Order: sequence, then structure tokens, then C-alpha cells
Amino acid sequence: MEEKMQQLKSTMATLADLGGAQAILGWDQQTYMPPAAAESRGQQGGTLGRLAHEIGTSQELGKLLEELKPYAASLDPDSDDARMIKFAVRDYEQATRVPAEFVVEQAEVTALANQAWAEARAKSDFSIFHPHLEKIVELTHRFIGFFPPADHPYDTLLDNFEPGMKTAEVKAIFEALRPQQVELIQAISKKPQVDDSFLHQAFEEKKQWDFGVEVITAFGYDWNRGRQDKSPHPFTNSSSINDVRITTRVAPDFLNTMLFGTMHEAGHAMYGQGIGMNLERTNLTGGASLAVHESQSRMWENLVGRSMPFWQHFYPRLQELFPGQLGSVPLEKFYKGINKVQPSLIRVEADEATYNLHIMLRLEIEIAVVEGKIAVKDLPAAWNARMKDYLGVTPPSDAKGVLQDIHWSWGMFGYFSTYALGNLISAQLWEKINHDLPDLTGQFHAGKFESLLGWLRENIHVHGRKFMPQELVQKVTGSRIDPAPYMRYLTKKYGEIYGL
Amino acid sequence: MEEKMQQLKSTMATLADLGGAQAILGWDQQTYMPPAAAESRGQQGGTLGRLAHEIGTSQELGKLLEELKPYAASLDPDSDDARMIKFAVRDYEQATRVPAEFVVEQAEVTALANQAWAEARAKSDFSIFHPHLEKIVELTHRFIGFFPPADHPYDTLLDNFEPGMKTAEVKAIFEALRPQQVELIQAISKKPQVDDSFLHQAFEEKKQWDFGVEVITAFGYDWNRGRQDKSPHPFTNSSSINDVRITTRVAPDFLNTMLFGTMHEAGHAMYGQGIGMNLERTNLTGGASLAVHESQSRMWENLVGRSMPFWQHFYPRLQELFPGQLGSVPLEKFYKGINKVQPSLIRVEADEATYNLHIMLRLEIEIAVVEGKIAVKDLPAAWNARMKDYLGVTPPSDAKGVLQDIHWSWGMFGYFSTYALGNLISAQLWEKINHDLPDLTGQFHAGKFESLLGWLRENIHVHGRKFMPQELVQKVTGSRIDPAPYMRYLTKKYGEIYGL
Repeated sequence: MEEKMQQLKSTMATLADLGGAQAILGWDQQTYMPPAAAESRGQQGGTLGRLAHEIGTSQELGKLLEELKPYAASLDPDSDDARMIKFAVRDYEQATRVPAEFVVEQAEVTALANQAWAEARAKSDFSIFHPHLEKIVELTHRFIGFFPPADHPYDTLLDNFEPGMKTAEVKAIFEALRPQQVELIQAISKKPQVDDSFLHQAFEEKKQWDFGVEVITAFGYDWNRGRQDKSPHPFTNSSSINDVRITTRVAPDFLNTMLFGTMHEAGHAMYGQGIGMNLERTNLTGGASLAVHESQSRMWENLVGRSMPFWQHFYPRLQELFPGQLGSVPLEKFYKGINKVQPSLIRVEADEATYNLHIMLRLEIEIAVVEGKIAVKDLPAAWNARMKDYLGVTPPSDAKGVLQDIHWSWGMFGYFSTYALGNLISAQLWEKINHDLPDLTGQFHAGKFESLLGWLRENIHVHGRKFMPQELVQKVTGSRIDPAPYMRYLTKKYGEIYGL
Repeated sequence: MEEKMQQLKSTMATLADLGGAQAILGWDQQTYMPPAAAESRGQQGGTLGRLAHEIGTSQELGKLLEELKPYAASLDPDSDDARMIKFAVRDYEQATRVPAEFVVEQAEVTALANQAWAEARAKSDFSIFHPHLEKIVELTHRFIGFFPPADHPYDTLLDNFEPGMKTAEVKAIFEALRPQQVELIQAISKKPQVDDSFLHQAFEEKKQWDFGVEVITAFGYDWNRGRQDKSPHPFTNSSSINDVRITTRVAPDFLNTMLFGTMHEAGHAMYGQGIGMNLERTNLTGGASLAVHESQSRMWENLVGRSMPFWQHFYPRLQELFPGQLGSVPLEKFYKGINKVQPSLIRVEADEATYNLHIMLRLEIEIAVVEGKIAVKDLPAAWNARMKDYLGVTPPSDAKGVLQDIHWSWGMFGYFSTYALGNLISAQLWEKINHDLPDLTGQFHAGKFESLLGWLRENIHVHGRKFMPQELVQKVTGSRIDPAPYMRYLTKKYGEIYGL
């Protein structure tokens, strides 16, 4: 069995190396690749993906996994080897259910849909995207059909992005949350708005960049195992536990773009850098799930980066860099400005209090589409009605409404809720962390973040993908994903800021 | 047969994609990779290399090639398909002769040897490298043994780097050349030396970089399909015909490093960018050989970049950028300075007149080692004796003598002569080009290089690897590689500069 386990590890190492190579190709594509290389880069990525798929669905691997099942059953179920086999079986079963021809068809449909979406958004004309989205919905139904029936057909999609998560579970969480979030936003809307005009001034790009670097260096981002570059859309790119890179963007006339984008990606990246080296080149590297990953990025961006203790330490430095712009803005005013709540049209620009509502809207629409209760042609109207209900705003155009996100053009139905779940997990972990580390506020005030990062490493990062997301949250906090801590956090924070 | 040819093309595309991905991994490693990622990068490159080797030596490919041989015989032998099959057969036969275990052993031995060489050079202590070099020589003999007996055992090594080239042929070329080059250098040494002290001043790095960019843009380097970055050792990196990147280095106190390094790499890169798109993702992309590649880099670096007409156009611009350093240096003096001949110890710093002698010395030593006529322990003495004979200088230490080059630590016996052959081919092509394009001097004077690049594209670049190097030189110039044009070029140029 030792020998068979070595065979599995060797296969996993090959797959990890292919994935790592693809990560670097992707990083290069979005940072430094010359424009004319797009086609050949697509071919190279396609070939590596095909080779990985051939290895990951081979009969040899299937046979090996069958032979290893009794061995896994004989082990401590939390041991690395047992978990490696468990997830290898899961991945193998998922990958072999979807026929290769379907994968090819999906790639072709989404390539065209992606182009059509870009054009539709540019022209704010849903009719350009409409026929492509019809095909994607049809493909989505066929995809669901490859899997055994679940409690709800949408479960299959969710499980694809958030392992083990059920539609009923997400709906229950969001239904508990929505009325409270709506109520909070309505209460805020009755109070005088805070001023954030000072954030919209000219800020020298080089100084912004340097400040971001100072902040994430203090957080504990490891430059020996990463780097930061510029890209139009910030991302984190992991090709190995020892190579987790981030990108950021800098707006010359708005401070938040660089500031919170940099902290967000550093949060993802420190997760990637913190995975135990015992998991390197296995199928257990990477995070527990997209939601758990998002809990880390949102924690550093919001619970740390939009907190008063953080700015008690860093604001004098920011004022020193931008004396003309911020010299006469007191800390209290700055803190309120970066935490301004204002219902808006675009998800990626939403504040903490309204963000989840953007997600709930998408989840409800996706479920209704899968259930056949909303036709594709009716999506713009369904979108706008919910925007009005939840956020009190109405998109002036589909470009700022149903066409704003790229995900559906990639066929990614089932993805969005991971963003909101990440917010919830971040607050749930935060309560536990503050219980375990009662002096966190004092440490942030002094610019110290080692205790926080150490706690996250030990409790979350080091495990990589060894645990399913709910299992991990339960293990660490004592309960499954729970919206209450997030509501407590929002209510307390915005109660103070807006004097509710 | 059409279908089998498609199968071959599909296999070649997979191999090209794996090679393209490896190229990007290599580029990243030498430019932007975080330091701690070296180990995982080695693993990723190793895995891609192993997969490519498995595909390139598979029995299916062997069978396919056997089946395609009659088809190739039925085609125009210069057609793309015929050439593709011919080189696929050649590559397959070479790859399958060398056992996989040998490749692994070689990788292990050279990894250690490479480290030992670096230490030996740093300490100038040959004894540290000695046992590793013994093993490499032993591996070299075993490598030769995998191939059918040739006219000379060194032929197998040469053929590995310069397809079809014979030891007797290279020896004959070099033996014709050596006395003439030695005589020229001796004649120069009796004349007053030219002054190049103005090249050794402080030159602002940004301005140097910008000037290099201006020059290679004028040459015709295509920035839409390439880019330039900094690296400690300049190189050209091709991951596709549409993605051929270069690097350069800038010395703050010596102009030549950036200047001629940039032109040299641009010469390689324009070759890569000029290969016919009909050859993309086949085994015929890349150049005809290392020597033909070097003929392109040396042509742009020396025959263009160290010529008077080039500087008649570009010198005023360089003076404008560096008025303090060059404002009072007349063009004639500058031209002589960048062409200063001075026998020296280090190959990579050698001038045009002495460079080939550095290569001849290495070739003779390599052949003698393969023949068993020089023992590894006697290499330092053999090296120093030839340096004295050919160049009139004696290394003060092994670091500046036998240990100066990295190649042997990589096991690359058979490589060096491609550098000198490249010089010879560049001058041979130059005579033909000047015959075909009589106004080249006038064009350079006006800063125009399109005709030259167009000629190279049409006669050399577009063919990629379709022809063997001697075949290509014959086809283009009417004769095989011939040292006479290079001697004519050196004699005329340095006769004028030194008043011989």
C-alpha cells in the first residue's frame, strides 16, 4: 500500500506541477505578455489543461484509487494520506462524470459568450448577450444531468464551487440575513451621510503603491515567496506554496482602489503562503473553498483594514505621504469616510453593509433560472425589480445592471454566493479570534499583526484543503456557517459610525 | 495519409505548447520569480520536460513516423510536410537512443557540477570542480556510445548542437582561420592602441536603456510580439513566433554592455519573430541551428552595430543623451573606441578580432579530452599554454582561465564552436547581402534597416528549421560555411582602424 500511495503522490505531483505551470502562464498573460501572444498562450494553456485532464481521468488513476480505498479506511481520517485519497476520489468522480466532448463544447460556447458579453456591456444591449446566455443555461442543465439527483438541482452547481454546500442551507442563511441587512441600510439612510470627498483627490501613484507595500509588509505578506505587480483587475496567483503573487491597481484620483484592493489580495495570498509544506505538490494545496478564501481576503481588507485600531497606527503615515490631501482631515473623519454606506448599482464597488444584498439578488435569480421560473429574456426586468426592492436603486441601463458581471459569460452559475459566505465566515472567525487573542486591538494600534496571522496560519491556513468548508468552520468556531456574527459586526460598527 | 499527417501535426503542436510553456517558466525564473520559488520551479520544469520526453519517445509516435516515411518520400523534399517528417524522424531517433535513466543521471550530475563550478570559480580553485568534470567527461563518453560510430567520436557531440556538422569540417575551417587571425592580431599589436577611455564613464541607466530601445526599434524588433526586461545575463526567450522576448543588462559605468548586448539579443529575437507562421506549433519553428542563430545576433551587433554608417546616423543622438561624456568625442574616435582590439582573458568580453581564438582553444581542448589525449587534471595547464600561444596572454588564475565558462558544468561538450561558426556565417551572408542590396550603407546612414531585415526574413528567418545549417548557407550564399569572408571583413575593417 505504501507503494500505491507513492504512486498517487507522484500523480498528484504531476498534476500540481501542470497546475503551477498554468498559474504562471496566467499570471504572465495578465501582467507582462505581449499583446500578439494571446492566441498561442490560449493554445499552451489548453494543452496543459488537456494533459492534466487526461491524467486526472485516466483508468489507471481510477484503479489506483479503488485499490487505495481500504488503506484510507484504515487510517486516521484526519491524516494527510486519508484526506488526500478522499479528495482524489471526489475529484476523480467529478471529472469523469463530465464527458470530454462536453468540456470542449463548453469552452467553445463560453469563448463566444465572453466576447458577446463584452460587446453587450459596452453597448448596454442585453439582446447581444441573450442567445449566448440561453446556450449557457442549456449547458448548465446538461451539466447538472451528469450528476446524480440532489435535493435541489442547484446543489450540483454550488458543490462545484463550494464543496458540500446545499441550496437549502445557503437560502436559509441568506433569508435570515436579508431582512436584517435591509433594515440596517434603511436606518442608515435616515441619518446624515458621512463625507468621503477627501478620498476623491489626486494621489500620486508611486506614493500610493509604496504605502500599500508598507501595509501588507506589516501584515506579514512574505516577499521572499511572492511579488506584487500591476494589472487591470487585481488577482492572487499561486503556482506553489513558495510562489504566491498578487497584483493591484492604482487609481490616480481615488485612494480606496489601491488601498483595499491591495489588502484584499494580500489576504488571499497569505492564505496561500500559509499552507503546510507537507501538502505541497498534493491535491490538498490551495484553500478549503472559495468562501473560506474570501473570508481571509475580506478579513484583512475590512475587519482589519477598515478598522479604527488599524488606522490609529497607519493614518499618521498616510497623512505624512499626502499632507496636502489629508493633513487637515482628522482620523475620525477619515475612518467614517472609508466606511461610508451608500446603496449603489455595482457589486464590486459596494460597501460592507450593502455588499451581500448584491449577492442574494444573484443567487435568487440563478436558482429561479435553474428551476425554469425566470426565462433568460426576462432577466433584465427581474434584476432591476430586485435592485429596487433590496437596495432602493434602479439601474439606468443593463450595463450597470444585469450585464455588470463577467461570471455568467464564463458559464459560472453557482459561484456568486461564495463571496457573501466569505463575509459571514470572516466575522464568525473574527469573534473566535478576539476571544482567543483579547489584545488584538492594542496590537493593531501598535502596528503589530503577527498574532492575527499566526492564529490564521495555525487554525486555517496550514490545513490547506484538508477539510470541507463547513467542516473547517465547525472545527474552528464550534458551529457551522452562521450569519449572526456578521450582523452583530455590522450593527455595532455602523451603529457607531451613523449614530443609530 | 492526410489523417496521419494531421496526427503528427497534433503531436507536434502538443510538444510545441509544452516547450512554449517551459520557455515562459524559464523567462519568469530569470526575471521576476520570487527567490524562494526556485525549487518548485525546477519541479514544474522537470515535469513538463518529462511529459514532453514521454510523448516524443512514445511507441505510437515511432509507429506513426514509420507509416509516414513513404508519404514523405512522395512529396517535394523541400515542402513543409516533408521537412517536418524528416526532422521528426531525426529527433525521434536521437531521443530514443538515450535511455531515460541516463537523462536522469545526467541531470543529477550536472546539477551538482554546476554548484561546484560556481564555488570553484569564486575561489579560483580547479580542484573543487575537478571530480565533477571527471564524471561529466565519463557521461560524455557514454553519451557518444549510444550513437552509431561516426568518423570521429566528437561528431556525435557536434551534431547535437550543430546538426550535420563534422569534426573534420570544423577543424579545417578553424585551421584555415587561425594563422590569419593570429597574424592580424600581431600586426595590430605593433600599432598605436586606440583610446576607448570615454566608454568607461558614468552613463545614466535610464538613458542607456532608452537609447537601446530606440536602436532596436529602428532595427525592426516587433514590440507587439515581444518585450525587453533586465536580467543578470542577457538572453532571448521564444515561447511562440508571436512572443519572442529579450533581456539586457546595463552597466552604470561602461556603455558597451547595454549597447551591444541589446543589439545582439534583438538579432536573435528578430530571427525568432521572422519564422513563417506556417511553421508555428510544428517541429520546424526555432532556428536552423545555434550557429545560424548566432550569425543573426552577431550581424546586428557587429556588422551593423559596430559599423561606421550605423553610427553616422545614431552617434548624434547618443551625444545628445550624454553631452558631458561624449560631446567632445568626435565620431571617428568613438568608432575606433568601440572597435578596440586587445587580446584578453575572458571570451565574453573579447573583441571581434580575437573572439574566434577563444573558441578554437576550447574546441581543441574538447576534442583532445574526447580522444583521451588531455586528462581532466591537466586542463588548466593546457588552457594556459594555448592562451599564451594564440592570444599572448596568461591567465593569472583559473577563475580567469579554464573555469570562466559555465558550459562544461552543464555537460555541454560540443557547443562552443557554434559561436565562432556564427561569426563566419554572419560575414558570409554579409557579402551576399551587400551584393543584393548595394545601397545598404546609405540606408544605415539614414537610419533605415528595413531592407536588411527584409532580406534576412526572406532568405533565412522564414525557413525556421526547415534546412540543415550547411544546406541553408549553401542555398543562400552558393557555398558551404567559408572562413574567407570573415577574414576579408576583419582585414579591411581593422586595416582601416589601425592603419595596417
